[in-house]
Amino acid sequence: MKVELFGDEEMHRLFAEGQMKIIQSPSIFSFSLDAVLLAHFARVPRSSKRKILDLCAGHGVVPLLLSPKTNAQITGVEVQGRLVHMAERSITYNGLTKQITMICADLRDEISTLQQGSFDFITCNPPYFKTPANTELNENEYLTIARHEVLCTLEDVVKACKFYVRPGGRVAFVYRPNRLVELITLLSNYRLEPKRLRFVYPKNGKDANIVLVEAVRDGKQGLQTLPPLVIYEGKSYTKEAEAIIYGKG
Amino acid sequence: MKVELFGDEEMHRLFAEGQMKIIQSPSIFSFSLDAVLLAHFARVPRSSKRKILDLCAGHGVVPLLLSPKTNAQITGVEVQGRLVHMAERSITYNGLTKQITMICADLRDEISTLQQGSFDFITCNPPYFKTPANTELNENEYLTIARHEVLCTLEDVVKACKFYVRPGGRVAFVYRPNRLVELITLLSNYRLEPKRLRFVYPKNGKDANIVLVEAVRDGKQGLQTLPPLVIYEGKSYTKEAEAIIYGKG
Repeated sequence: MKVELFGDEEMHRLFAEGQMKIIQSPSIFSFSLDAVLLAHFARVPRSSKRKILDLCAGHGVVPLLLSPKTNAQITGVEVQGRLVHMAERSITYNGLTKQITMICADLRDEISTLQQGSFDFITCNPPYFKTPANTELNENEYLTIARHEVLCTLEDVVKACKFYVRPGGRVAFVYRPNRLVELITLLSNYRLEPKRLRFVYPKNGKDANIVLVEAVRDGKQGLQTLPPLVIYEGKSYTKEAEAIIYGKG
Repeated sequence: MKVELFGDEEMHRLFAEGQMKIIQSPSIFSFSLDAVLLAHFARVPRSSKRKILDLCAGHGVVPLLLSPKTNAQITGVEVQGRLVHMAERSITYNGLTKQITMICADLRDEISTLQQGSFDFITCNPPYFKTPANTELNENEYLTIARHEVLCTLEDVVKACKFYVRPGGRVAFVYRPNRLVELITLLSNYRLEPKRLRFVYPKNGKDANIVLVEAVRDGKQGLQTLPPLVIYEGKSYTKEAEAIIYGKG
């Protein structure tokens, strides 16, 4: 499906190989490895009767990446209208308008078109950083809002997950390990019991720089820590990272 | 120094190589890899002016393993008198009576010989399992008490750590990853902020089966996740595991 590109927008490949594409813009920000890892990690339900929600959906990269894995309906929520506009055209371009819907809304509000406790699975790539100094705030507003807790804190996001996921449903986060204690404590406080954990290391011998967490609403205690994922070996991707990034993982 | 052995007790090497020995008994239980990993992971202070406490000290393996790393005074607390008796003779055998003291006490009590907030570093290898059924309890009482929460829960141990460690002092735990959420939540609730985390994997491609956590009393948020430690490659130790187990790590 042909869609219009505005300003400096470009059509990029979503996986390093493959047909799917996404609209990106150098003046906004590009989708990151984090989103690719989250979509790969999330064990989303496959049935068309299930419902998936992606919070902090940005330009729609996670919903797009999830779509080949499932027949479930996918809803993306993003507060920045400019990004929703990009996401909607990417969805149209890839012929996915029947499966993916974007909603421009603030996750701190009760969103009238979404029903409480109605989602089977929620994915989220939330802002990682505490609110920056005012000087940093104006450089690239899109990036600032996506990366910093300007419009929502981690607690706002966890609270929204708890509100929209059904009992027994799952939520999956990609986050920074240095804030893992806060994430685990918040999930636990909101009765989203962490069940699967995976650490991502840039190279052998380095500290982890990404963590993936899956939790179950009202789940029993008992955490599984998956084998580590290492991204680079020298200047090349490791086999496992390559398979994920090329959409074969 | 010569010491008497009772019943089926034997003198074992503490590291796979090296001079230090420890009294073990097949009718009790043997020290585990966990204790060796904890003693290696713990960045204990070196100065003779510092004080280290080991809770759930058992037959004294962690204090013995720590002694070559530090000149600090080391106190071990263990509730089972039979194990304290073994530990004391191992300490004597290795000529360490000036550095290591064992106390037979219940960590749930306020121990009169230990001062609140006086320790710079606390190590702990607590019981991992919830209290078992009564049928299991009688088979090997020493092992049951060491492995199961019969005489203390995880919260009792964390509370004792908080009580005896000084502000800014550190505590290090070895634990099972499946209960990491409880450990992190409890540490956080008692203002022992987790700062370093390391997962131990039996082999490549397997889930983690041991986790090491270091926390700082009243510490700032910010967690470092160290590179994974893998124990076996085929039927041999990996180089890193071998160096730790042979006391060269």
